[in-house]
Amino acid sequence: MKIGLLIIGNEILEGRIADANTRQLALFLQEHQLELQAVQIVSDETSQIHQALQYLYQSCQMVITSGGLGPTQDDITKESLASFFGKKVQFSLQSKAVAENNYLRFNRPFPGDNHGYCFLPDAFEALDNSTGFAPGLFYQDAQRKLLAGPGVPWEFLSLLKDHFLRLTLQERSKQQLFLSCFTARTKKIPEEKIFREVDSELWSKLSVFGNVSSLPTTFGVDVGVKIKATTAEELETKLARVKEIFLASPLASHIWQYGTRTLEEMIVNLARAKQVNFAFAESCTGGLCAHRITNIAGSSENFCGSIVSYQNSAKQNLLCVQSEVLNQVGAVSEVVAMAMAQGAREAFKTSLAIAITGVAGPGGGTTEHPVGTAWFGVSHGERKFALKLQFHGDREQLKQRFAQAALYLLLEELEKIA
Amino acid sequence: MKIGLLIIGNEILEGRIADANTRQLALFLQEHQLELQAVQIVSDETSQIHQALQYLYQSCQMVITSGGLGPTQDDITKESLASFFGKKVQFSLQSKAVAENNYLRFNRPFPGDNHGYCFLPDAFEALDNSTGFAPGLFYQDAQRKLLAGPGVPWEFLSLLKDHFLRLTLQERSKQQLFLSCFTARTKKIPEEKIFREVDSELWSKLSVFGNVSSLPTTFGVDVGVKIKATTAEELETKLARVKEIFLASPLASHIWQYGTRTLEEMIVNLARAKQVNFAFAESCTGGLCAHRITNIAGSSENFCGSIVSYQNSAKQNLLCVQSEVLNQVGAVSEVVAMAMAQGAREAFKTSLAIAITGVAGPGGGTTEHPVGTAWFGVSHGERKFALKLQFHGDREQLKQRFAQAALYLLLEELEKIA
Repeated sequence: MKIGLLIIGNEILEGRIADANTRQLALFLQEHQLELQAVQIVSDETSQIHQALQYLYQSCQMVITSGGLGPTQDDITKESLASFFGKKVQFSLQSKAVAENNYLRFNRPFPGDNHGYCFLPDAFEALDNSTGFAPGLFYQDAQRKLLAGPGVPWEFLSLLKDHFLRLTLQERSKQQLFLSCFTARTKKIPEEKIFREVDSELWSKLSVFGNVSSLPTTFGVDVGVKIKATTAEELETKLARVKEIFLASPLASHIWQYGTRTLEEMIVNLARAKQVNFAFAESCTGGLCAHRITNIAGSSENFCGSIVSYQNSAKQNLLCVQSEVLNQVGAVSEVVAMAMAQGAREAFKTSLAIAITGVAGPGGGTTEHPVGTAWFGVSHGERKFALKLQFHGDREQLKQRFAQAALYLLLEELEKIA
Repeated sequence: MKIGLLIIGNEILEGRIADANTRQLALFLQEHQLELQAVQIVSDETSQIHQALQYLYQSCQMVITSGGLGPTQDDITKESLASFFGKKVQFSLQSKAVAENNYLRFNRPFPGDNHGYCFLPDAFEALDNSTGFAPGLFYQDAQRKLLAGPGVPWEFLSLLKDHFLRLTLQERSKQQLFLSCFTARTKKIPEEKIFREVDSELWSKLSVFGNVSSLPTTFGVDVGVKIKATTAEELETKLARVKEIFLASPLASHIWQYGTRTLEEMIVNLARAKQVNFAFAESCTGGLCAHRITNIAGSSENFCGSIVSYQNSAKQNLLCVQSEVLNQVGAVSEVVAMAMAQGAREAFKTSLAIAITGVAGPGGGTTEHPVGTAWFGVSHGERKFALKLQFHGDREQLKQRFAQAALYLLLEELEKIA
């Protein structure tokens, strides 16, 4: 079953928000051995919606739409879908019941029979929305399926989770495809070096098993192989052989994970398994390290906290960095990075702390420490050291790269613990 | 001139990364009075790329592509574009010179004449890439323009900034359209209430001047009016009249900004103008408030820092919250929120601090404080208070909503200062 996505919304084409639903749908489909074929983004105009549907149904059996189901007058998706399939929008008891239930869930009074949520195209089904008010929509005829969800990302995702499997049961039971994407996540090495210097035969060796891809990430590269098979056994065998190729490659020492988990997930899991508490002292990352770690549920078990010491006085008062040191060598220095890490350990009473002090720009750079320079301090039991890295980029990119480098360091320290 | 975007990359359709280039292009075009017509996302396959180009050129004079220009074998954009326009890819001194210059900029040795970057389709121009290695591409014939950029977001953006205006000079000089999107950013009120209860005539009054849109954001709604005019004067008049409508509406008290700046930009600017230093004590937001503030260049002038006290011991040791209080009323409480704010003021020696303590979930909820509850503490000169809010959502959404609520509070405190 080929599936296309149609995103409807001026707010995306005007850049007011970034689309998050393509990624959510792609990951959801992959979990269920399905592929996302193509995506279109159009404005809230009936003619554009019709053209895009026409185009997508040429290659897809199912189109999923996102956006335009809300209560305001710019929400024209329902009318446009109805006219595309030649249906009339009418008052529907089924749609009303679904909408009333959505309101009940949030303890809000339902606006009444004249509300748009009570109206539905003929032959459509209104779908319960477990995280918002607007019902989703479903329609199918002999050749085509349509699932319409709200644009709000969590509502779109809950609609998929609540309804997709039931609505595609028949098609999926016929499917004979087993699909998996094997990912090896590498760190600290440029994309080009991987395939030209580290292992020039890797690409062709992997290609035997599926489409190979290379995706630069923050201070790393994800190498992926998309594997298709006709049986579960064949898929397992292929996955195992691809992993063997990576393990035998000189690239192996740069791989920090086989899989798609995030760096912060890895860190939280490893800290829990090894029962190590940790903390940060952050200057130029401004709280980003702590934010990433605390995105992971259960991080509070081993993550004690972070001191975001954005000004020098905070480095002195909260991390006990000596003012003479700050005056003599400056905040971006080996000595200060190490003192900050030590200070964080003492403040949070942990055995491990990472400190970051650098220049995120655009101002503040010097000849010795241009924008993009950062010192990383590590204090871990008896091990104490600092290292300097230099990155390119604008302020937000630099914050991301500094944080990524700090989290790599943290992961490496956790891996060293027996 | 109508412009379409074609995003090429399996990594997007497989959900490995989210597309960031649609938003960047949309904002860039809007700055130059142009609109993004439609977007297509396809995989790295020549037939899909050709179909999508065919489709986009039916309604657009210019197509901008992103992705697939890198050095690895999955990067097939150049070949696919060449074959679409019936051109052959050949060794090009011009492309080689551009690529060599890109390498020089990063102090990296150029791989040599056999590198893919030295090859270019006939009649194409290779474009300097000021933030990466892969040259961009440009082609035009009587009816169509093509600009191809790398998928990496900052490289894509720098290509636009460096080349777009020069390459479209002729078309833009003919254009007689003046375009602006007026945005009123509201806070703390649900979308439906705005147009049904607060001001039921607002939508129709605004519609006289252009397309109205309503976009729910984190704990707020952006109301937009897209205004078109044939002269600069007409545009100014319309913008002024739209603003008058908002100012006269009961909605006005919920509007925190006319414009598209972020909340953190507003805060940093206001703190600088009023010369107020501020700090955070963060528990459930885990550093997100500090991260958002420090994304703004120059924030270090007035932002002193944040104590991310993720565990109770940190609240005691670093924020001087009494252990008896934590034991008696728990960390998620009015008393603790106020004590944390006070503690942050003392730690950072500021006159203003905001504290956040709550339950981001999925675990840790109680009957009294279910997941989604947060207490916000404010300590500002003589003013000291705390308030409780309750949100829905998963862990990451809750962190975002808590942080947004905390930053609204901070903005309100800054606005109170004479």
